[in-house]
Amino acid sequence: MENEQIHNLLKFISYPEDLRKLTLNELPLVCEELRQDIIKELSCNPGHFAASLGVVELTVALHYVYNTPYDRIVWDVGHQAYAHKILTGRREVFSTNRKFKGIRPFPSPEESEYDTFTCGHASNSISAALGMAVAAQKKGDRKRHVIAVIGDGSMSGGLAFEGLNNASSTPNNLLIILNDNNMSIDRSVGGMKEYLFNLTTSNRYNRLRFEASKMLFKMGVLNESRRKSLIRFANSLKSMLAQQQNIFEGMNIRYFGPINGHDVKNLTRILHDIKDMQGPKILHLHTIKGKGFEPAEKQATLWHAPGKFDPQTGERFVANTNGMPPLFQEVFGNTLVELASMNDKIIGVTPAMPTGCSMNILMDKMPDKAFDVGIAEGHAVTFSGGMAKDGLIPFCNIYSSFMQRAYDNIIHDVAIQKLHVIFCLDRAGLVGEDGPTHHGVFDMAYLRPIPNLTIASPLDEHELRRMMYTAQLPDKGPFVIRYPRGRGSLTDWECPLEEIPVGKGRKLTDGNEIAVITIGPIGKAAAEAIDMATKEGISIAHYDLRYLKPLDEELLHEVGRQFKKVITVEDGVIKGGMGSAVLEFMSDNNYYPHVKRIGIPDLFIEHGSVQELHSLCEIDAPAICKAIIQMHNQEV
Amino acid sequence: MENEQIHNLLKFISYPEDLRKLTLNELPLVCEELRQDIIKELSCNPGHFAASLGVVELTVALHYVYNTPYDRIVWDVGHQAYAHKILTGRREVFSTNRKFKGIRPFPSPEESEYDTFTCGHASNSISAALGMAVAAQKKGDRKRHVIAVIGDGSMSGGLAFEGLNNASSTPNNLLIILNDNNMSIDRSVGGMKEYLFNLTTSNRYNRLRFEASKMLFKMGVLNESRRKSLIRFANSLKSMLAQQQNIFEGMNIRYFGPINGHDVKNLTRILHDIKDMQGPKILHLHTIKGKGFEPAEKQATLWHAPGKFDPQTGERFVANTNGMPPLFQEVFGNTLVELASMNDKIIGVTPAMPTGCSMNILMDKMPDKAFDVGIAEGHAVTFSGGMAKDGLIPFCNIYSSFMQRAYDNIIHDVAIQKLHVIFCLDRAGLVGEDGPTHHGVFDMAYLRPIPNLTIASPLDEHELRRMMYTAQLPDKGPFVIRYPRGRGSLTDWECPLEEIPVGKGRKLTDGNEIAVITIGPIGKAAAEAIDMATKEGISIAHYDLRYLKPLDEELLHEVGRQFKKVITVEDGVIKGGMGSAVLEFMSDNNYYPHVKRIGIPDLFIEHGSVQELHSLCEIDAPAICKAIIQMHNQEV
Repeated sequence: MENEQIHNLLKFISYPEDLRKLTLNELPLVCEELRQDIIKELSCNPGHFAASLGVVELTVALHYVYNTPYDRIVWDVGHQAYAHKILTGRREVFSTNRKFKGIRPFPSPEESEYDTFTCGHASNSISAALGMAVAAQKKGDRKRHVIAVIGDGSMSGGLAFEGLNNASSTPNNLLIILNDNNMSIDRSVGGMKEYLFNLTTSNRYNRLRFEASKMLFKMGVLNESRRKSLIRFANSLKSMLAQQQNIFEGMNIRYFGPINGHDVKNLTRILHDIKDMQGPKILHLHTIKGKGFEPAEKQATLWHAPGKFDPQTGERFVANTNGMPPLFQEVFGNTLVELASMNDKIIGVTPAMPTGCSMNILMDKMPDKAFDVGIAEGHAVTFSGGMAKDGLIPFCNIYSSFMQRAYDNIIHDVAIQKLHVIFCLDRAGLVGEDGPTHHGVFDMAYLRPIPNLTIASPLDEHELRRMMYTAQLPDKGPFVIRYPRGRGSLTDWECPLEEIPVGKGRKLTDGNEIAVITIGPIGKAAAEAIDMATKEGISIAHYDLRYLKPLDEELLHEVGRQFKKVITVEDGVIKGGMGSAVLEFMSDNNYYPHVKRIGIPDLFIEHGSVQELHSLCEIDAPAICKAIIQMHNQEV
Repeated sequence: MENEQIHNLLKFISYPEDLRKLTLNELPLVCEELRQDIIKELSCNPGHFAASLGVVELTVALHYVYNTPYDRIVWDVGHQAYAHKILTGRREVFSTNRKFKGIRPFPSPEESEYDTFTCGHASNSISAALGMAVAAQKKGDRKRHVIAVIGDGSMSGGLAFEGLNNASSTPNNLLIILNDNNMSIDRSVGGMKEYLFNLTTSNRYNRLRFEASKMLFKMGVLNESRRKSLIRFANSLKSMLAQQQNIFEGMNIRYFGPINGHDVKNLTRILHDIKDMQGPKILHLHTIKGKGFEPAEKQATLWHAPGKFDPQTGERFVANTNGMPPLFQEVFGNTLVELASMNDKIIGVTPAMPTGCSMNILMDKMPDKAFDVGIAEGHAVTFSGGMAKDGLIPFCNIYSSFMQRAYDNIIHDVAIQKLHVIFCLDRAGLVGEDGPTHHGVFDMAYLRPIPNLTIASPLDEHELRRMMYTAQLPDKGPFVIRYPRGRGSLTDWECPLEEIPVGKGRKLTDGNEIAVITIGPIGKAAAEAIDMATKEGISIAHYDLRYLKPLDEELLHEVGRQFKKVITVEDGVIKGGMGSAVLEFMSDNNYYPHVKRIGIPDLFIEHGSVQELHSLCEIDAPAICKAIIQMHNQEV
């Protein structure tokens, strides 16, 4: 660490055009300054860390060689793009990164013309960049270069493969940069990783082409019959060399590499060399996630998003959580181990998120009971379906917003067959700083129309445990449990495991003027609001629906019969969600209460703390309380 | 064609155990009989044809070698499974194939224990089969074999790649059979196809291994220095041969082939040989789609699902459609050409369905204006997003039920950025004989919650043309148009292209007792019902909503103010669909009409003709009329 040593080059770089004025020899200094900037800023304003450090040289080389923003760089998963942000007009505001109303967590075309495409979910860069390359060609922009930067982790996603497959058969000049650090958030897994490793060790193959040509040259000295036989052999060899290409070349994509992604001068030279070659190309880089900050190089997963830390010592400032309720994730992870010890049909499945969802607890304790299938949500679901078909009970844990990628798999590969797969939707609701691509707000609306599903959401940690227990009981069919990121509300989370009958909600508090129906942990905010409003003299009943599907008809009949005023509260989209389910029930059963639905409005919600966003969307306690009072004062 | 020649072996085969009693030499006869059975039956009871003919030998060999149903065969896309059905207890009922209450169009675990998994959508077989292979292992069923049968067309789907990627890193004995006929429904496209072709021509590679070893043997006669240099060279060659494996071997999946998939005896021997080899394996077959029926071999796309035909001459019985309204598909295809001639930003995108959706008309007339990206719905959407980002206007046509595979791509890669992509959802609503996997009934419910989308559905062909015209006007953002398979209702479809203002519905007929609100062509059934009910003396207003999003608020305020009785009719799921949108509007605006929602119930709907299914779901004219009369008689 040499963050005392200031070269002051960055000060003069507002935009890439300034960078391009520097000499090749100055680029390593720019890289060093960028790295120090990132380390310094991230140490006090937490965010994604190790990924951006790994691509400092690549970012500098790209903006140096290419004429951005006219040329298009498409980042795959934007958490690697901090150096890019600093170099493209956002150095001054970088301290607002990820903050409410500050600069966005991931590149966003709305924020900067240098940000070409949304990049919150992995594996989309090749497809998007190919679209831009084709558009350039169709519009006669022959000079425009388009570059997709994709990590080896993202390469396991089917979308990346579909993009590659199409790139090879469509005329285009796309450059794909494969940033190979052997990591996604956790370590990369799967055959493609293996394949890339093999490619790397087969540098010998390139040397062999050279050897072969020397051999052929020497053949002149041999006698005629041997010469003929050798020529035949050489021709075979030649055609073999032509045919036994790697997968990329086999798909008509020219392959270069692998090369060291941290040698900025060499990287710059190579980009210059291949820049104007026609046709699709792939450049394979080796980089180190966390490069330049030793603790991060050693433990890249831990330093993916490390929170605050000391930039000198690398000590992470872990908040004292003694006496605080546990994370829902910890409850999930530990309860899964408990259940797996009781029921040996249980298997854990995660698409590249073992640490994030805490399935690593199961992986550590019972390694043969859990699968990390790589970034491959669709496969995670269908694979779970196959296991369930032959008698296992998979707990398939996927972040709510990533589950959007497996929508058809849920319908086609699980729900039609009523297979006993338990979908745990982590990060449900507004997730905070990761912003619109990561909010898990659509799940209730998109899952509710699917036949045969059971859909549940726990109010607190005890309910999560009980729902997980219930879900794995025999013959429960496909079962969804959605819960948020972050801490629950109970410190004594280790309650006994008991069944909650499917489709059975409960009344939390009694009242007779207004019924408030909630689902999931947002019920805590509603309870707070109800406390406040009760103090104003309003009599409010609070129902925790627990199951979005099947609905608790007994409970809803009670509400329909007893109340003229109903408020529904959910941390999901207002269109088609739980409130709509309540409206449908009331309409179908000839109840006509006045219903106010509280939920996420029909907009993509920006980033900020969860509290800030709940307040913005008016789903926090004060807003709910206000709605209660308003409804109370209203004539019906 | 030799369908006179009857060998009567099939008569004795009810189940695969009967097949296994035959000698190897009898298998070709079984294949011939099976083929004749399929040709004869399909000639009068239309269905998927060419695909099943292509895998007759494979099907026989699999059931002969493997101990089904204990061993698991997972078919990828079930339209190839007719021989499988005939051999597994369904020969007697094969004449009911695809008919209402008859045997199902695709293998279905509910129908037969030999049918292991749902297989209506392509590319899921490897993931599902891997799940079964893992389950067998975890449960100690060491003897169970699991085989996935996947076509080269399906290999372009990202899910297949995700499955492969995971298969290579999970301990399992899966056998993947790659049925390579260079076709999906249309001709295969993309890099993987290319790659498989290269693999095929590189049989030389295997021969070369042999040549190389002979060379090394001869080296003894060379002098010492040359000998050393050659040994060095040979070692390099050896390591290269080891490393320059094909992609499958590079992913740790043993590769065998390619071999002729129509030589049933050889195929049987090879399956025997590799049956008990440990670890994941892939066997690459070459087959001919339509094999054994000459017209189908020559024109496989035409014969994918040819309708009725003469089994002797191959003459297809094309119904006389003179004077009939056109298919919605023809209107789409021709209108797209018209629009593309007017607006050179327009581009067509289809994932492997150019013939089915009629984008082949554009491809023929303006080949550089359309892309077939292969079976790759997610990529089709993201690729369209990339093109839209740089100024093109893609018409991305995907069958409604297949669009479920691109749900996240719509949200993440298009809607967030408000990109101007036009999604044409063909096969919306109940599609008929293809059954539950193909019904396009979820789209309105899953798309409605997505911000920034415009969602439209045309009553008839004129409206389809006008909506397509409207969608491509400047700055319209993401725009969905859903329409069904089959014929419209107008013969003079070539109306002028005019804008329909976004969010603007219309009143079709006036009335004052009941308002019927419809969207899309189901409005025609409603109009019929209204005619009938009007004759009973009921006064009914009919509103064609046109746009599910944004809603026509003026129209709905009129309904809310003027009617106490409202019926909504849609050919989509009742949970969360258009009717729910109407309920939400009424509730949000303090109207309390009595609302009856008519739509698809919360069940997976089986196969049958569209008419039969509309009647089953009570969304046909008589059922709507009954609902009108019921509501009319009801006290509110």
